[in-house]
Amino acid sequence: MLVSAFLTSVGINVGLCILLLSLYSILKKQPGNVNVYAPRIAAEERAKERGSLERFVPSAGWILRAWRASEDEFLEVAGFDAYVFLRIYVFSLRIFSFAAAIGVFVLLPINYFGKDFSDIPNQSLDSFTIANVQSGSKRLWVHFCAVYLISGAACCLLYLEYRGIAAKRLAYFYSSPPQPNHFTILVRGIPKFDQYSMSDTVEEFFTQYHPSTYLSHQMVYHTGKVEALMHEAEMLYKKVLQLKEKPRFQRQHQREGFLGLFGSKVDPVDHYTKKLENVEENVRSGQLDFLQKKKEVPAAFVSFKSRYGATVASKIPQSTNPLLWVTKLAPEPQDVYRPFLSAPYLQRWISRFVVMVAVFFLTILFLVPVLFVQGLAQLDQLEKFLPFLKKILTTKVISQVITGYLPSLILLLFMKTVPPIMMLFSAMQGSVSNSGKQKSACIKVLYFTIWNVFFATVLSGSAFSQLDNFISNPKDIPRKLAVVVPGQATFFITYVLTSGWTGLSVEITRLFPLIVDFFRRHFSNSIEDDDCAPTFPYHQDLPKVLLFGLLGFTYSLLAPLILPFLLIYFSVGFIMYRNQMLNIYLPRFETSGQYWPIVHNCTIFSLIFMQIITIGIFGLKKLPLASGLVIPVTIITLLFNNYCGKRFLAMFDNYPAERILPVLQTRERYGRLAMIEAQFDDDDRAILDNLLYVTGLTYVVDMPQITLDHDLLTAVAE
Amino acid sequence: MLVSAFLTSVGINVGLCILLLSLYSILKKQPGNVNVYAPRIAAEERAKERGSLERFVPSAGWILRAWRASEDEFLEVAGFDAYVFLRIYVFSLRIFSFAAAIGVFVLLPINYFGKDFSDIPNQSLDSFTIANVQSGSKRLWVHFCAVYLISGAACCLLYLEYRGIAAKRLAYFYSSPPQPNHFTILVRGIPKFDQYSMSDTVEEFFTQYHPSTYLSHQMVYHTGKVEALMHEAEMLYKKVLQLKEKPRFQRQHQREGFLGLFGSKVDPVDHYTKKLENVEENVRSGQLDFLQKKKEVPAAFVSFKSRYGATVASKIPQSTNPLLWVTKLAPEPQDVYRPFLSAPYLQRWISRFVVMVAVFFLTILFLVPVLFVQGLAQLDQLEKFLPFLKKILTTKVISQVITGYLPSLILLLFMKTVPPIMMLFSAMQGSVSNSGKQKSACIKVLYFTIWNVFFATVLSGSAFSQLDNFISNPKDIPRKLAVVVPGQATFFITYVLTSGWTGLSVEITRLFPLIVDFFRRHFSNSIEDDDCAPTFPYHQDLPKVLLFGLLGFTYSLLAPLILPFLLIYFSVGFIMYRNQMLNIYLPRFETSGQYWPIVHNCTIFSLIFMQIITIGIFGLKKLPLASGLVIPVTIITLLFNNYCGKRFLAMFDNYPAERILPVLQTRERYGRLAMIEAQFDDDDRAILDNLLYVTGLTYVVDMPQITLDHDLLTAVAE
Repeated sequence: MLVSAFLTSVGINVGLCILLLSLYSILKKQPGNVNVYAPRIAAEERAKERGSLERFVPSAGWILRAWRASEDEFLEVAGFDAYVFLRIYVFSLRIFSFAAAIGVFVLLPINYFGKDFSDIPNQSLDSFTIANVQSGSKRLWVHFCAVYLISGAACCLLYLEYRGIAAKRLAYFYSSPPQPNHFTILVRGIPKFDQYSMSDTVEEFFTQYHPSTYLSHQMVYHTGKVEALMHEAEMLYKKVLQLKEKPRFQRQHQREGFLGLFGSKVDPVDHYTKKLENVEENVRSGQLDFLQKKKEVPAAFVSFKSRYGATVASKIPQSTNPLLWVTKLAPEPQDVYRPFLSAPYLQRWISRFVVMVAVFFLTILFLVPVLFVQGLAQLDQLEKFLPFLKKILTTKVISQVITGYLPSLILLLFMKTVPPIMMLFSAMQGSVSNSGKQKSACIKVLYFTIWNVFFATVLSGSAFSQLDNFISNPKDIPRKLAVVVPGQATFFITYVLTSGWTGLSVEITRLFPLIVDFFRRHFSNSIEDDDCAPTFPYHQDLPKVLLFGLLGFTYSLLAPLILPFLLIYFSVGFIMYRNQMLNIYLPRFETSGQYWPIVHNCTIFSLIFMQIITIGIFGLKKLPLASGLVIPVTIITLLFNNYCGKRFLAMFDNYPAERILPVLQTRERYGRLAMIEAQFDDDDRAILDNLLYVTGLTYVVDMPQITLDHDLLTAVAE
Repeated sequence: MLVSAFLTSVGINVGLCILLLSLYSILKKQPGNVNVYAPRIAAEERAKERGSLERFVPSAGWILRAWRASEDEFLEVAGFDAYVFLRIYVFSLRIFSFAAAIGVFVLLPINYFGKDFSDIPNQSLDSFTIANVQSGSKRLWVHFCAVYLISGAACCLLYLEYRGIAAKRLAYFYSSPPQPNHFTILVRGIPKFDQYSMSDTVEEFFTQYHPSTYLSHQMVYHTGKVEALMHEAEMLYKKVLQLKEKPRFQRQHQREGFLGLFGSKVDPVDHYTKKLENVEENVRSGQLDFLQKKKEVPAAFVSFKSRYGATVASKIPQSTNPLLWVTKLAPEPQDVYRPFLSAPYLQRWISRFVVMVAVFFLTILFLVPVLFVQGLAQLDQLEKFLPFLKKILTTKVISQVITGYLPSLILLLFMKTVPPIMMLFSAMQGSVSNSGKQKSACIKVLYFTIWNVFFATVLSGSAFSQLDNFISNPKDIPRKLAVVVPGQATFFITYVLTSGWTGLSVEITRLFPLIVDFFRRHFSNSIEDDDCAPTFPYHQDLPKVLLFGLLGFTYSLLAPLILPFLLIYFSVGFIMYRNQMLNIYLPRFETSGQYWPIVHNCTIFSLIFMQIITIGIFGLKKLPLASGLVIPVTIITLLFNNYCGKRFLAMFDNYPAERILPVLQTRERYGRLAMIEAQFDDDDRAILDNLLYVTGLTYVVDMPQITLDHDLLTAVAE
């Protein structure tokens, strides 16, 4: 790619970003858009105070506000997962600042003066890459040192992050009040005995084997339609309340008929009250039906008198048959994903296998559209296939737009469909919590992204026909990667511009939700849900950030020109996501930091990948000694990863006895944390009575009338 | 290989076996050999009763005696690991009887009449293999059915075995009396605080976090030389007692000087008593030294009041730092392997890595002698390298001995050195129990055997030069294996004869121990250890049996002629090892069945390997449909393995709460086992006082004088 074409792409993206950001800072201030930009904050008053002119002037105050929030404030508002997500940006900023310092000030000049020196604009961007250095040149030893320096710095920073996040996670766990889920386990695979109900079996089992800690249990039942009806009733109830607040003349009178288009006009309050009564009738008959049948499912939530009791019961295998009495700590009540609570082991096992196969084929077959995108990226290909467009394509501006911008945009649109599909797959895998589902989808999307965006592009761009050859000759992989990866450097720089920069702007402007909201408010009849703050789509955004990390590591040596662009992406992204986390997304459920091990492993993969390519590059450049000397750093990186797994990964799996056990006496020498835990025992007892009530209520699946009768019947009576 | 050469090999081996077995049944009856053939039984009286003529007549009574022992008797005498070992023979007999029925009566005729029919003796053995069937022949579908039948039967039998052994293991665990190690955990990574001793730290930690179950603890100390001296003193004490029993004139007077060859003759009682006094002096000074210094090691054995308490403490992570307070269930007292109790985590981690690398290189470099052996196997090679031997080599008998017998014998001798080396490696890996060390060595030897005996032979015999090509083209592996594996069928049949048949005879005759014992008794001056019954070398014999299983599965389709020979091996082996387990080997420590998962995984590997080769064979024979239709059975086998892992493997890792918790009431519906457990609670209490004493004593490392002062000082005083 020529420097001029590249600069066009930069220009377009910068223009788009500025446009979108200005739009954001204006749209944000419109009171009507509160639902879109600050669903979490009742910001209406503040918006009203503002002068109407000020509302239309772009400003940067939101940046300051996002920046100012302290860490504790952030944790409280956005949750621990959001904290972990932002740590990726912090880590990336740190390591890539270091890499950029080396890359831009040391490697770039070496690359550029490697062969020849000519005027910049008409030159290919390749002259900034390692390809420009002559084979066997002594200058390549500088690149060699850079591999060691960057790998070393990355490992140090990774270690510090892992340690920091693990410690923070424990502190966060301790500082947050005891939750019902800490005291509760989910038991599945409850055996069925003929004359007894499963509920009796559960009670007997746990009173027998955990007599001192067992508190109560809550069976899971087939609820049928009652739950969905309950949800509808609640929505209608809210809607009625909302409408009643408005003066009568402000209410939009609606038609009763099909889609609100036909029939006579009625007062919406009457309309919805009538609807609510109907639904409520259905709920009641559904409840009666439910209470008569009470179909038990072989799963139950069992609560214990202490967090330690619950942990022990979840860790120790209960039965001689490992498929019976399967225990695990219960997810948070609002995190429970019901559809697979009741699935027997064999069904979950088969569906997991089927999903694995499906994900595999999705990942492989997705190559087809990527190939198509890749075809578009090359102008000459386009001219060959669409000869009638030749005139337009040869225009300088159009050709530069097409080479610089179009391919990655199309790829981006294709990629948008993948996270929802993977989420669907993860749901089918039998997860019992929404957070677990999202985490599993995140891993799937990550594999997908790395394979389909990175490898497919690398292979299809310059040597896709060699893929077969590539797979069947594992020994030559480093050498072949060294040939094909540098060739795609410019593509990935533009990818950072489109998917990274513009992607961020689109994310913060929330174009799509804005349009949806607009239509919903003005044309739709549907019930408005005020709690519409969305949850953060980790499974969609995390793999994207990690892909940028992979690009950064891979190209930090080959084409350091990518690093400044990445740095801008990471710094803008940090501020933006901070803003989004604080104002838009609501942490409805948490994995409490389970995403970090994924990030860590992916970063290690990126490092190893960088090292393997370097081995190949030095081989190609006829520096076999340097090539061989990279292998030790690869081994050290793998050992480091192994050590981190031993040292930190276990901390993400469970909370240790030190933390969940009440401490009777405090001694200084077990570390200062023990002191904080003193007297926890009494607190434990004090909250137990509450918890008994809460756990019964929060995991309630069998008694929907508790919630219903209190709230809704009074509402209808009003 | 020609049929006649092959028959020569069969003849030699059968002759050797008969000779050795006759020798065994004679030698066994010699009273002097009791130490070699029945060290576990005080059989002297019985031997004396026999007439002197009867002693020299070969007999087969030992077979009956070995056969007669009931399962419970066997378990009690030989332990659970021996039971598991013999189950491999039972499983192999069952599956290979089935495979042999198909192979000999269906496949063999099809193979033999595949191309041509000529007189047997001058024909190559290859005419009995699948190579003889014409390409594209419809008869190959019979082979295809055989793959499904054998795979299905193997999976069914594997499932039944796994289930049976898992259930037996639990029953065995329950039926054996509570052991100190059930109540004890090994804690490592105890942090050091300045003013406190580690012993205090341990006590404080466990009284704080496990106040209701903690019983006592036993620190590990650096014992220095005291332990070795103690052992020597004990030996000397036994020797003195032994000598005192004999009348004075029967004692062989010995010279005091170098190796008992020089110096004046003295009464051995005086001689050893003097020696004992010296050693005892050293022990005493060593103890004083030890007691003054008392160098603590950051490891301790912590005992709990119940098995459940110990299990919980071993399963729940104790500290926020997973490298501190690392807990695991303690090995049996006699199973503790001390050298690595004190090793810090980092040291164990590094040594594990180093050992991994060393094992890898040993496995790879061992190819060199195997290649040499392979060279010998081919007569023409031998003639080329050693032309002066041409005359001898061309003699019919010699040439047949060389082709039929020599190669596998040399391989056998080389292989003998591997298990001790692997044992050494496993010891360096930081194991804390002898059984764990042996299990780890077993896995290493297994990898080694499969790679070096099977793959190296297969590749070097016909296509070793293609190894490089082989590794670098993973897609073609099935096809290439299909080419090279059948070519080695005759070699492996002779391997079964030499390593299997003759190996068994050598094992039961115990030639090497016999010679050692003879020299020790007649020429050596060393102290006799009466408890010299050896432990069974699982790490040496288990991989060998599994290799025969791999051969059986691999060749059951390609060259079914191997199956009858294997069947004879397995049936003779079953009886012989039963005899050995009952009479010779003493189960000093147990893994309680942990070997079965290894056997299971290896068998699954063999099955998959057989299926992959079949895919290649059908591809070569131009039956691509059959080739493709084998893939489903491979997937089903893998899924079956996954299911078994989920269903049974967990049962080998831990004993479930159902089993370790005392049951207060017994209810029929938790299965009949619950009933057996009733009233265990009281037993628990009753044995606790004993255990407190026993655990203190059995894990004793810091107080050697307890054992010493009682036994030895009285002995010297006599």
